Amino acid sequence: MRTLDTRDVRDLPAVEAHGLETEPYYLPIGDEVEVFRAAYEARLPVLLKGPTGCGKTRFVEYMAYQIYRGSASESHAAVATPLITVACHEDLSSTDMVGRYLLVGDETVWIDGPLTRAVRSGAICYLDEVVEARKDTTVLIHALTDHRRILPIEKQGVILDAHEHFLLVLSYNPGYQSVLKDLKPSTRQRFVSLEFDYPPAEQEARIIAHESSVDDDMAADLAALGAKVRQLRQHGFEEGVSTRLLVYAGQLVARGISVHRACDVAISRAITDDVEVQRAVAEIVATIFP
Amino acid sequence: MRTLDTRDVRDLPAVEAHGLETEPYYLPIGDEVEVFRAAYEARLPVLLKGPTGCGKTRFVEYMAYQIYRGSASESHAAVATPLITVACHEDLSSTDMVGRYLLVGDETVWIDGPLTRAVRSGAICYLDEVVEARKDTTVLIHALTDHRRILPIEKQGVILDAHEHFLLVLSYNPGYQSVLKDLKPSTRQRFVSLEFDYPPAEQEARIIAHESSVDDDMAADLAALGAKVRQLRQHGFEEGVSTRLLVYAGQLVARGISVHRACDVAISRAITDDVEVQRAVAEIVATIFP
Amino acid sequence: MRTLDTRDVRDLPAVEAHGLETEPYYLPIGDEVEVFRAAYEARLPVLLKGPTGCGKTRFVEYMAYQIYRGSASESHAAVATPLITVACHEDLSSTDMVGRYLLVGDETVWIDGPLTRAVRSGAICYLDEVVEARKDTTVLIHALTDHRRILPIEKQGVILDAHEHFLLVLSYNPGYQSVLKDLKPSTRQRFVSLEFDYPPAEQEARIIAHESSVDDDMAADLAALGAKVRQLRQHGFEEGVSTRLLVYAGQLVARGISVHRACDVAISRAITDDVEVQRAVAEIVATIFP
Amino acid sequence: MRTLDTRDVRDLPAVEAHGLETEPYYLPIGDEVEVFRAAYEARLPVLLKGPTGCGKTRFVEYMAYQIYRGSASESHAAVATPLITVACHEDLSSTDMVGRYLLVGDETVWIDGPLTRAVRSGAICYLDEVVEARKDTTVLIHALTDHRRILPIEKQGVILDAHEHFLLVLSYNPGYQSVLKDLKPSTRQRFVSLEFDYPPAEQEARIIAHESSVDDDMAADLAALGAKVRQLRQHGFEEGVSTRLLVYAGQLVARGISVHRACDVAISRAITDDVEVQRAVAEIVATIFP
Amino acid sequence: MRTLDTRDVRDLPAVEAHGLETEPYYLPIGDEVEVFRAAYEARLPVLLKGPTGCGKTRFVEYMAYQIYRGSASESHAAVATPLITVACHEDLSSTDMVGRYLLVGDETVWIDGPLTRAVRSGAICYLDEVVEARKDTTVLIHALTDHRRILPIEKQGVILDAHEHFLLVLSYNPGYQSVLKDLKPSTRQRFVSLEFDYPPAEQEARIIAHESSVDDDMAADLAALGAKVRQLRQHGFEEGVSTRLLVYAGQLVARGISVHRACDVAISRAITDDVEVQRAVAEIVATIFP
Amino acid sequence: MRTLDTRDVRDLPAVEAHGLETEPYYLPIGDEVEVFRAAYEARLPVLLKGPTGCGKTRFVEYMAYQIYRGSASESHAAVATPLITVACHEDLSSTDMVGRYLLVGDETVWIDGPLTRAVRSGAICYLDEVVEARKDTTVLIHALTDHRRILPIEKQGVILDAHEHFLLVLSYNPGYQSVLKDLKPSTRQRFVSLEFDYPPAEQEARIIAHESSVDDDMAADLAALGAKVRQLRQHGFEEGVSTRLLVYAGQLVARGISVHRACDVAISRAITDDVEVQRAVAEIVATIFP
Repeated sequence: MRTLDTRDVRDLPAVEAHGLETEPYYLPIGDEVEVFRAAYEARLPVLLKGPTGCGKTRFVEYMAYQIYRGSASESHAAVATPLITVACHEDLSSTDMVGRYLLVGDETVWIDGPLTRAVRSGAICYLDEVVEARKDTTVLIHALTDHRRILPIEKQGVILDAHEHFLLVLSYNPGYQSVLKDLKPSTRQRFVSLEFDYPPAEQEARIIAHESSVDDDMAADLAALGAKVRQLRQHGFEEGVSTRLLVYAGQLVARGISVHRACDVAISRAITDDVEVQRAVAEIVATIFP
Repeated sequence: MRTLDTRDVRDLPAVEAHGLETEPYYLPIGDEVEVFRAAYEARLPVLLKGPTGCGKTRFVEYMAYQIYRGSASESHAAVATPLITVACHEDLSSTDMVGRYLLVGDETVWIDGPLTRAVRSGAICYLDEVVEARKDTTVLIHALTDHRRILPIEKQGVILDAHEHFLLVLSYNPGYQSVLKDLKPSTRQRFVSLEFDYPPAEQEARIIAHESSVDDDMAADLAALGAKVRQLRQHGFEEGVSTRLLVYAGQLVARGISVHRACDVAISRAITDDVEVQRAVAEIVATIFP
Repeated sequence: MRTLDTRDVRDLPAVEAHGLETEPYYLPIGDEVEVFRAAYEARLPVLLKGPTGCGKTRFVEYMAYQIYRGSASESHAAVATPLITVACHEDLSSTDMVGRYLLVGDETVWIDGPLTRAVRSGAICYLDEVVEARKDTTVLIHALTDHRRILPIEKQGVILDAHEHFLLVLSYNPGYQSVLKDLKPSTRQRFVSLEFDYPPAEQEARIIAHESSVDDDMAADLAALGAKVRQLRQHGFEEGVSTRLLVYAGQLVARGISVHRACDVAISRAITDDVEVQRAVAEIVATIFP
Repeated sequence: MRTLDTRDVRDLPAVEAHGLETEPYYLPIGDEVEVFRAAYEARLPVLLKGPTGCGKTRFVEYMAYQIYRGSASESHAAVATPLITVACHEDLSSTDMVGRYLLVGDETVWIDGPLTRAVRSGAICYLDEVVEARKDTTVLIHALTDHRRILPIEKQGVILDAHEHFLLVLSYNPGYQSVLKDLKPSTRQRFVSLEFDYPPAEQEARIIAHESSVDDDMAADLAALGAKVRQLRQHGFEEGVSTRLLVYAGQLVARGISVHRACDVAISRAITDDVEVQRAVAEIVATIFP
Repeated sequence: MRTLDTRDVRDLPAVEAHGLETEPYYLPIGDEVEVFRAAYEARLPVLLKGPTGCGKTRFVEYMAYQIYRGSASESHAAVATPLITVACHEDLSSTDMVGRYLLVGDETVWIDGPLTRAVRSGAICYLDEVVEARKDTTVLIHALTDHRRILPIEKQGVILDAHEHFLLVLSYNPGYQSVLKDLKPSTRQRFVSLEFDYPPAEQEARIIAHESSVDDDMAADLAALGAKVRQLRQHGFEEGVSTRLLVYAGQLVARGISVHRACDVAISRAITDDVEVQRAVAEIVATIFP
Repeated sequence: MRTLDTRDVRDLPAVEAHGLETEPYYLPIGDEVEVFRAAYEARLPVLLKGPTGCGKTRFVEYMAYQIYRGSASESHAAVATPLITVACHEDLSSTDMVGRYLLVGDETVWIDGPLTRAVRSGAICYLDEVVEARKDTTVLIHALTDHRRILPIEKQGVILDAHEHFLLVLSYNPGYQSVLKDLKPSTRQRFVSLEFDYPPAEQEARIIAHESSVDDDMAADLAALGAKVRQLRQHGFEEGVSTRLLVYAGQLVARGISVHRACDVAISRAITDDVEVQRAVAEIVATIFP
């Protein structure tokens, strides 16, 4: 795979189909599935708001599976790649999203970026943590989210009409965004906004049990621990603990690490460097696992 | 479309003609149509000021249709692309606007940027949110908006006289511009300025009904909701709600989502992350849809 | 014009000769014509200071016409391009001004920048709003404005002696320059400085009548309006109104827009977003056009 | 080695196997070996926190040796390069980590970056001082540390599934990180976190004796010195002294430099430019080596 | 001269010899000629400090003429280019000073930068306003100004011994340098420092008469004017007026402009935008030319 | 030397051997020679701290000569280039230090940077004023200064084991470093630190006499002058005067400049622009040379 010839580039497989051969594991909390489906039917762009690790990525994978694989729509089933995810960061330019020319041998070939692939093929394009992206990317968003539904590809001098199945979905975390990195009103007023939070204790326990192979009691205790740690937010600790870290603690316990030590390395020290907060978490652990 | 050969570049179709085969839907509020037409006749550049989503883009599409398609002028009808829109952003350079050389095979070809295409062909060039563009683009504006009406293309070493039908139109939103991103007086004093605001309730209800397929009562209620939410601006909430979001709410209702939930995801959470403002909006919703 | 071959580049016409086939319209206010001519005869560089839209660009076009076209000097008449204007901006580098190598086919050709063309051919080179240019351009200015009158072209490794007719003219607006963008003393002490202001009412009325086809009364009223609006500067409104905007108002009136509305869109809203100032202007309009 | 031809690039040896032919010297302090092994078995990413020179790099080398060389797992033994280390810095881009195209002769070849090599081959990839890296690298981390375990290689347009043995390990020093260079919660909540500190006196003495060839008494005295210097942290001196510097002092003593001078150049002046702190250290030295 | 072929680049004439065919006009003020000559004989680098337009550039031209053209030294006479001047600015990189590779046709040729040409040929290299240059250029200065007298050309991988006649001369203006743009002590302590100020009135009058063709009385009055304007510095006006501007005023007078108007445009408005200072200067003018 | 062909690049001589054919002149002050030798024998990296012009560069040249030329070690004598110096600055990247690909004709050749040459050949690599370098260079330092002694060359995809004779030596001046440009603890705790100051009066007099050809009395007086000027540091003048400037003064005296004037231009005005400090220095001069 070290050498690239022209043929390779032209025949690149639809590699982004990754991960949706089987139904992703997702437990609905409220009516978010119905609202998303209605928005999708009207092709209204969707914004997912919520804290770190509360399940936004899983939700959009789940919805993509339901819409493209779980329904009877033949034209949806024909879309090879239902979901194309772009993790945004401050060096991500519109060129990265749209595509670029590449010199291959003595020939110039064009390679579509992930947004262009989604627009062309009819996939859901999911821009994760969109406020981290460079500002020039928000421009691409505008023309795709109003009545025009077009993607201008300036470098090729063409304007692409979006595939009828295409939808843009964004996520962002209002909790730790700075003023400088807020969404402009002219951008955010183009999206239906769904808010997410950590799952209720019972559902979180089911997730922990499902993903870490601990028994139901341990899973319930870890979910209870998560709920208590999140209450620390009211005492000045801004971040909660993600479901993922609770699962980590369970996985370490399942491999023989003591529950105190597992909570220490997977929760307490993972969420903070502040010894006060670490001590507060340790006390919660000691209460739940005496 | 993955490979580009020299012929492709030379024969690129006039792709920007998008969207003006049919008359765009626009409801005039005052005499903005007459003023724009008089400015166009004198070829005076126009600046459209106003908040997010109040219809500036639609208005310029509508005027382009009226001038190039709806009139009897044969020379206007001959312009294949009446309107070329550039969504401005801080990485947009004058090169992006004017054009660049591209290496195709072993040949160097020049590709016009959108401004050059408009200047050459006689289109209206609409620079949306112009203060977001890099400063070097304002220079292009100057020579095109005084008695010279020329576009210097430095990279080709030529100076282009603007087509007799060419006009430059800018938009900007005075509400959330920082001091740093204001238009310089030497730029703004080259434009006739038209101010826009959200449409009056009755007209907005007609727009909502037209675009979301809800009945007239629901449309009137949503328009009333929009008016009340915009009054919150007087209580510290700077942004209003765009007509577009009211249409979104209508579309969700039309697909079976309850009106409370629809207003929650399409209005309340879409316009703000501030729980106080969200609560105020919810109270307005409860009043209108008891 | 989409493809560029080597021959094209070599035979590029003197495209900058634009606009001086006929005498530009300029009404002298004081002795600025005589001072400029004396400075030109001694080849002293000239700096034009003054607010937006007060006629600096027109003045330099007028002087270039007088010196190269209106005089009997055969060597001046032989200069094909009397005036080369560069609108400065913060991305304008010395490379843009001096020239660059361009790869054409498999050959490297050199293309002169506008300053080099002026130095070589004996034109007046007018750097408009020079403090906006990148600092490396001021260096080019130094060697051209002392006893050396040379232009070093580092990329070619040559030093060009300026043509005997060459002169450098700069403009800047002291009113809204920040401290960071001031001219360094080592630069500004190389120029004879001419200060400009808006024309007196009678002359401004003549300009408005000449350029907008309104009758003399309307032109006089609009000039009176301009004078009153500029007095607002003493009440905290920093910018005045340019003669150009008064002409715009006249042009709209000539096309059937009411004088109140014409003053509203071409003056009041064009010069400011501040509702207080807009109201003050409206009151002046109501006084003059009762 | 000065010339590179295509064959060279293709046949590049697995050069990163450096340093793990023999077991690295590491003295476990607590249960860090067991916790790391459990995390590795569950393929949970690991974050090592701790001050300068306390042994984090050695620890990860030791664990890589234990897992890939010291175990009976044949598939682990087949991994030619158990550990790939990337020292992060602010100019390190995702391109440096993932790989780039290189023009060799007239052929374009792709060269994997260190992260891609680890993902492909099943190595542990250790990102040392990760908060120093550019933000775009944290994006690479996300997709590799959740259920997807994928590495998107945008420049090739492919997505790589991580080898089953791959694990990502990060280090950072919470002591002197600025607020601007903290790990984002959405990043750090993907890692099990192990905290490190300087070793206890007895173990540090064994390390000093092992690495500097001084006798046990001298090693014990130097370890005691280290402990006392670190207590200065409570008096406003933020940094301690690393074990490495204590070893340096021992090595200078072993080569005939007096212990006072050795502690002066290898400890006192090496850890600070502050004469107050230097004096405090000198007093401690005088107490231990009277 | 528009096309460059390989031969052109190789045979570039020694174009920098500009301006020293005849003896530059310079009036010594004190012993600066003797001190410079002694420093040159010991090859001690020289720093010229002083305000704008006081004659530093003329002085170094004069000394270069004296040393290379006015002396009997045959080896000095053999240096084709006695003085190579570089006007420093913030975009001037070490590459600009040292040289670069240029692709000419299908061949790569190296072109020496101005510093390299001076080092190679034995010229005086004069870096004007050196603190404006990028910091990487000061590094070049270091190795050329200590006992090594070498210039490392990293891009060629060679180190050049300076020609025996080479000398580095710098200028800077301590008056308006910011703290950020000061010379580092490790740089400035490599130079003998000569301070310059405006010439005494009698000498300045001789210069004005020599360069502007006004009679001796007018020249004496203008010199007296200059002295008085410079005293304003004690009243908060930081910059003085350069000799050059006094010459400008004389030249305008010689071309028929009244002396009041000439002082207005060439002095008062040329040195400041501050109306208070302009008024103060006008009063001085009225006193001297009643 | 203007054209570069492939052969030239491959056969580049070991040009950096400059300056060590003869023993550099260095007067040891204390035991710095012994400590450096012991550190070198244990291959402990060395950091030289001290003010401008106190002899750090000379010292490292002297040590390199002693170790590679003055000893009986045959393998040291075989190192063609004992010392490779890199003057650090803020634009120095790791690419400059490690090496880069160069296109020569139609072939790509690799050229080692100075650090790579030292690592490969066994030289001492001296990074002068290391805190001025870009941060990415400190990363190179880390892997070369711990037990690994490796240099990763990312662009070639190889890791180089350091030659057994290689040693890294750094210098920095703690006096005028800003907080932003301090060495990170994780970097500085990898070095044995030797502090330097100006030489005592007697030794400094010997240096002045040796390098400027003045007699012993004058040399002693200049050394006494240096000592007194450095005491001004206690009165708010931060920088002292370097030995180099005292030598300059001696050289000017030896060429007939009066001692007062020589001290004026080579000391007083060379070290400061502050007239108070200049006056204080002048008084000291008047005392010593009455």
